[in-house]
Amino acid sequence: MSDSHDFTRKLQKENGSKIVLVVGDGLGGLPLEPGGMTELETAKTPNLDALARRGTLGLSIPVLPGIAPGSGPGHLGLFGYDPIQYQIGRGVLEALGIDFELGPNDVAIRGNFCTIDASGNITDRRAGRIPTEVGTRLSEKLNQIKVPGAEVFVRAGEGYRTVLIFRGEGLKGDVADTDPQRTGVPAFDPVARSVGSAKTAQVAKEFLRQAKEVLKHDAPANFLTLRGIDTMPAIPPFREVYGMRAAAIAVYPMYRGLARLVGMDILDAGHTLEDQMNRLEAAWNDYDFFFVHWKYTDSSGEDGNFPLKVQRTEELDAAIPRITKLKPDVIVVTGDHSTPSKMKSHSWHPVPVLLSAETCRFDGSTKFGESQCLRGGLGQFQAKHLMLLAMAHAGRLEKYGA
Amino acid sequence: MSDSHDFTRKLQKENGSKIVLVVGDGLGGLPLEPGGMTELETAKTPNLDALARRGTLGLSIPVLPGIAPGSGPGHLGLFGYDPIQYQIGRGVLEALGIDFELGPNDVAIRGNFCTIDASGNITDRRAGRIPTEVGTRLSEKLNQIKVPGAEVFVRAGEGYRTVLIFRGEGLKGDVADTDPQRTGVPAFDPVARSVGSAKTAQVAKEFLRQAKEVLKHDAPANFLTLRGIDTMPAIPPFREVYGMRAAAIAVYPMYRGLARLVGMDILDAGHTLEDQMNRLEAAWNDYDFFFVHWKYTDSSGEDGNFPLKVQRTEELDAAIPRITKLKPDVIVVTGDHSTPSKMKSHSWHPVPVLLSAETCRFDGSTKFGESQCLRGGLGQFQAKHLMLLAMAHAGRLEKYGA
Repeated sequence: MSDSHDFTRKLQKENGSKIVLVVGDGLGGLPLEPGGMTELETAKTPNLDALARRGTLGLSIPVLPGIAPGSGPGHLGLFGYDPIQYQIGRGVLEALGIDFELGPNDVAIRGNFCTIDASGNITDRRAGRIPTEVGTRLSEKLNQIKVPGAEVFVRAGEGYRTVLIFRGEGLKGDVADTDPQRTGVPAFDPVARSVGSAKTAQVAKEFLRQAKEVLKHDAPANFLTLRGIDTMPAIPPFREVYGMRAAAIAVYPMYRGLARLVGMDILDAGHTLEDQMNRLEAAWNDYDFFFVHWKYTDSSGEDGNFPLKVQRTEELDAAIPRITKLKPDVIVVTGDHSTPSKMKSHSWHPVPVLLSAETCRFDGSTKFGESQCLRGGLGQFQAKHLMLLAMAHAGRLEKYGA
Repeated sequence: MSDSHDFTRKLQKENGSKIVLVVGDGLGGLPLEPGGMTELETAKTPNLDALARRGTLGLSIPVLPGIAPGSGPGHLGLFGYDPIQYQIGRGVLEALGIDFELGPNDVAIRGNFCTIDASGNITDRRAGRIPTEVGTRLSEKLNQIKVPGAEVFVRAGEGYRTVLIFRGEGLKGDVADTDPQRTGVPAFDPVARSVGSAKTAQVAKEFLRQAKEVLKHDAPANFLTLRGIDTMPAIPPFREVYGMRAAAIAVYPMYRGLARLVGMDILDAGHTLEDQMNRLEAAWNDYDFFFVHWKYTDSSGEDGNFPLKVQRTEELDAAIPRITKLKPDVIVVTGDHSTPSKMKSHSWHPVPVLLSAETCRFDGSTKFGESQCLRGGLGQFQAKHLMLLAMAHAGRLEKYGA
């Protein structure tokens, strides 16, 4: 039994119960002053507090003490996948972030438009930070390139960023970046770091040869470098490891992509939390597990906007009654990491967790917030174990051993 | 990513911040009576309490629950090295304890003077507990021995104890003890337990042959046994794993030795805490990380002297303002293990930890002591993760994953 999936595969059972996992992205915070309250503690959250009184609180450690996770490892942990064991490459994450449906034969690559001079030396690694419209037009041009042995997809990112996908048999992702990380020198040729990746390197080289031709009159964006060349990690599907039909209701592509990575169905989530709640209600009978993602607790934290993060938290709270009305057997409200407004970034601080179910042991909690979570009945635990707790409270795990 | 150094190697960044790790050796304690206060709780520690109010408390588990560590594993854990993965042999620890600078080609050995009779059988395994002066004189005699294939160093320890170092190419440490652990039988010959250690066994055998000759008129100390034959463990240097220039300011040789083992610079620490603080101030601009070691919380505990341990704790507290005045970004105050006066020995009890930094999440602590540490925001965690927390709070770790 090397990881918790060995348990869930063996002990899972079907009982018709339903679990809702509500992720307030970057939910955990810090007070601005010693002895003060965090964003979550400042927020008026009557609905979450009511759940806290009927449930159990705790703090989760996303990866290890002191390690601040990106969105990828943060969510993998919440989905019960060890974020140290399963790593998502940069290219794959970029592809997920533009809603590209990656398949098993795909290599995903982050491309950066750059400027080269007549000798082929890079003079600007970000092509004068061209606007997204220009990047989009150039990506569409590059998307016409045909390379023997692979299908090529080029999709615009933000500004000078673009995403490439090579699709074909026998393509591996172990190819070094071509970005030399400095100017005055040419980009590197794509070099395979293992025998199995030789074909990918060859495809990339031919693509770049044609790209230089296609872009030659498009200065300052007359070439591109490739980074984070990766295939999808081999992640066992959610349905197999937990025996649950899972649906993701997320407005942002990145989080839909992370859910797709573990094999969840992606439901059209609209644009607002109300749209998401409508979708949840509509799909209620079709799934056992729902992942509902709320982005704005993170983005307001990243902006260093404490009052806005408080407000975004209150908006999430206001949606809770629509979930509880559906009478899920287990509702979990947490974050994928902390994003304290004070730090304007993801942080390593343990993340507030609220789990409410009929089988909760009460811990005297009255308010969902970091201080009460610290004293909560779930204690401090690794995020990757949260799914075990959720399944247990849903009655979806048999006893281990006789 | 098998251990936390995989993270620190990959995520470390330089930002000019400074960390001070203050180790009160054996800091954790026990109350003498049920419901009573520990040494640390009894001590008047206004400066530590002020730090506690601005910081976060917790308890660290040095190795595993129930495992009382020696100084070696205790400190390795604090330095972020897994004390189960990295083990320090007895001979090496003895050599560190007398400030001997071990190199990579050295085998270190603990020697015990003993008494043998005319037939060569051991009659006293500790040579009548000769005083240190006698042991010193005999060690100097043995230090004259020349053995082909290795340089020999013999250095006096306490009483009947001595330390041997064999230095030479191709010497491995896998040789069995020669002490038969009983009297009435001869000492064992040194036997290699692996092929690579054959040369060491040969060197030891020749050394013992000459030693018997040299000591033949020195009864009761007319021979010696060898124990804990070991080479330095292969420990990756602190600078490499954390990217910090580290300095140790420790009065006792053992702790300088442990710091040297992980590659810290050893600064002349003088004899008093005031000397140590002077040294800290003088070296402030030259290092990123400072390890300050205070021995007497442990030795007073080992002596079973509760009031003295309280006093020694208060002395440490009095030095804190000289550290905070330097405005370190992170200050950690903890112990390498607990040494309750009530037990007169190292114990397994979790160790109080105080971490103070701008990015602390407050936990309502008002006093540095075991009871408040138990309720502290850091929870109970493995000592080897303390460095991750310190680096995170110092802003020295990048985000993990995108």
